[in-house]
Amino acid sequence: MNASIAGPEIERLIQLLSKLPGLGPRSARRAVLHLLKKREALMGPLAEALADAAEKISTCSTCGNVDVTDPCAICAAPRRDPASICVVETVGDLWALERANAFRGRYHVLGGTLSALDGVRPEDLNMAGLFERASAPEVTEIVLALNATVDGQTTAHYLADRLAGIDVQITSLARGVPVGGELDYLDDGTLAAAFRSRRPT
Amino acid sequence: MNASIAGPEIERLIQLLSKLPGLGPRSARRAVLHLLKKREALMGPLAEALADAAEKISTCSTCGNVDVTDPCAICAAPRRDPASICVVETVGDLWALERANAFRGRYHVLGGTLSALDGVRPEDLNMAGLFERASAPEVTEIVLALNATVDGQTTAHYLADRLAGIDVQITSLARGVPVGGELDYLDDGTLAAAFRSRRPT
Repeated sequence: MNASIAGPEIERLIQLLSKLPGLGPRSARRAVLHLLKKREALMGPLAEALADAAEKISTCSTCGNVDVTDPCAICAAPRRDPASICVVETVGDLWALERANAFRGRYHVLGGTLSALDGVRPEDLNMAGLFERASAPEVTEIVLALNATVDGQTTAHYLADRLAGIDVQITSLARGVPVGGELDYLDDGTLAAAFRSRRPT
Repeated sequence: MNASIAGPEIERLIQLLSKLPGLGPRSARRAVLHLLKKREALMGPLAEALADAAEKISTCSTCGNVDVTDPCAICAAPRRDPASICVVETVGDLWALERANAFRGRYHVLGGTLSALDGVRPEDLNMAGLFERASAPEVTEIVLALNATVDGQTTAHYLADRLAGIDVQITSLARGVPVGGELDYLDDGTLAAAFRSRRPT
């Protein structure tokens, strides 16, 4: 779009919004039109909420989670079990586990996975803190809740190797048929894993 | 998601972003994670751009376009033909015509269409200004560039009726096969219209 049509302010907004995942130039334009229509109700509040978040939110120096406090609310919560640390790739994975109410211990966010292709080495990830935390006397279990992708599993193996010298139990998430899953549509790997791990009912 | 997991600041951001067209709660969460990752490069600038736009941008009192000036850049441009006014439903439609470089006159943005179902009456739209502008001596043509939908065409008919008493030529966009369109995939209405309006080549 010619910059002179809608003015540089709107152009800049479209350009910034189109950098969000799931929004291209076209949908960013649609979002901006919606924002312009709801200037009072949405545009102003969104600007404030963003400025507020950008100012207040920081990364937890213990676990790598994002929060307005450091240590984050999860690390600081006394009712959460300090004996168990769940290692996840991203904050999004942490949120997913919290939504599922799956875990009452504490987390450790790596911030990605090892990747030869993208040149991500162990020192590029939030790993040093994990080895330190795992060595603490109260810690008895490390759950490696990494994605079931090639990079995720490579990272899990690397971590399991590195943690082998420390006196903690290392576990990982079960593989199997997802809830609502139909066998006919599952991939062979999942089906084979589910079969191998079959349990008496 | 439990509000205590990520803090009220992040929750509010997700909630506001999920109101944008094309973003649901899930993609809003993904967008917020992306923003949190790029706090300096994206979150701050986006907050500023939004605040800037919310503060500066207003609706042109002549044509209904949005811009940082009133009258807008198009209404104020001396090189644009004052004899021709193109009536569109929304600012998005105006942008689309400008991108296509289709028109060198001025615009009039209705802000919607008449709709019995949604209870939109003529007085709910930006119409009074149009009749006034159409009566100006320099105006010779009104292009009704409304969408080819039921509501758009109802509105176009209503406007054509109302403008009939004024000495201007009223035109509307041609119907036909879109560029790149395949006959086999076109709807019957478009095909019939294209056939009726066939031209010597």
